[in-house]
Amino acid sequence: MIQQQHCLNISATGRGFYNITRDVQAWVNETGIQTGMLNLFVQHTSCSLMVQENADPDVLRDMEMFMSRLVVDGDAEFLHRDEGDDDMSAHIRMALTQISLNVPIINGRLGLGMWQAVYLYEHRTHALNRHVYLHILGE
Amino acid sequence: MIQQQHCLNISATGRGFYNITRDVQAWVNETGIQTGMLNLFVQHTSCSLMVQENADPDVLRDMEMFMSRLVVDGDAEFLHRDEGDDDMSAHIRMALTQISLNVPIINGRLGLGMWQAVYLYEHRTHALNRHVYLHILGE
Amino acid sequence: MIQQQHCLNISATGRGFYNITRDVQAWVNETGIQTGMLNLFVQHTSCSLMVQENADPDVLRDMEMFMSRLVVDGDAEFLHRDEGDDDMSAHIRMALTQISLNVPIINGRLGLGMWQAVYLYEHRTHALNRHVYLHILGE
Repeated sequence: MIQQQHCLNISATGRGFYNITRDVQAWVNETGIQTGMLNLFVQHTSCSLMVQENADPDVLRDMEMFMSRLVVDGDAEFLHRDEGDDDMSAHIRMALTQISLNVPIINGRLGLGMWQAVYLYEHRTHALNRHVYLHILGE
Repeated sequence: MIQQQHCLNISATGRGFYNITRDVQAWVNETGIQTGMLNLFVQHTSCSLMVQENADPDVLRDMEMFMSRLVVDGDAEFLHRDEGDDDMSAHIRMALTQISLNVPIINGRLGLGMWQAVYLYEHRTHALNRHVYLHILGE
Repeated sequence: MIQQQHCLNISATGRGFYNITRDVQAWVNETGIQTGMLNLFVQHTSCSLMVQENADPDVLRDMEMFMSRLVVDGDAEFLHRDEGDDDMSAHIRMALTQISLNVPIINGRLGLGMWQAVYLYEHRTHALNRHVYLHILGE
């Protein structure tokens, strides 16, 4: 049984979904692990992870529409407004989704279903460099 | 330290909660692992996992009432409607709950609290066969 | 590769956030593990875990304001009211946040980002003793 760690860097260009499945799989390939457990951990409080459909882009558009309606930017009741209208809403969006995700590794591949992809979900509206820490354990 | 994997099949008969605790424990028993970490991973984007109370069925009924009010089937702003009014709402319900869940194994048992059970939460309204991938690592 | 388990006890004095980062790190230190995977698992159905900002207390205040507005205590449509107005709302708050959280261990430290802390998020309004089960695997 071995373990390896890697920090994945993502250049987010604003609010939205970034498909990181291919980059994560590329690193898993490098480790050579065939059976194991992969963890992805976001080291921020204003972006998150989401497994979501990989086919129709309307799914991601509707997901974002729903989130922006549920968590209103610049909500009049927010006290925390240091960095603008998308600051506190980003913290709440993160809290309602995932910052840590485990995916089984099966025959060297992320054990995703046919219609699943792993996305970094950026909640801030401006460009940011993001870190997703990868940990794998297996053989 | 050893690891094992297994695909659990669940015949969901429509929207609602399916208690899978007993089936998962039965597989853990087969592995013989006494101390370890179990991961459950849903390989779909329209059902999810939820740890919830195992006693009063009104808890599950109220949970579903809340979700159906929060994420309205056939919302007029949804673009993704390929498979009916429960299609996009199912993707959002999944995103607000869990598709990956880790549970410690303590003395050969899922380390759940006294009032906890693990449910598959089906969000589509028609019958579907669902896969929950199980991974265990321990000794 | 070794694993260890520990039950962390938290005396919650009512609804709100309890920063458990230091207590969790203290136990990780005792294990001596430098590289590994840590899981935190809440053995209850009315409190949860949240990674959230560790700097401005207004973030936690706004988070709680949002949750109390989204999940209304004593909602007229709730059937499950055995233990008061904060009973069913606590189950829903738990379901929308996390009861199981994985954090990588990097050089003996929880691999949190600079602005992250791990909180127990208590949803009941009265004092309760809570158990968070810790499992670590690594070397």
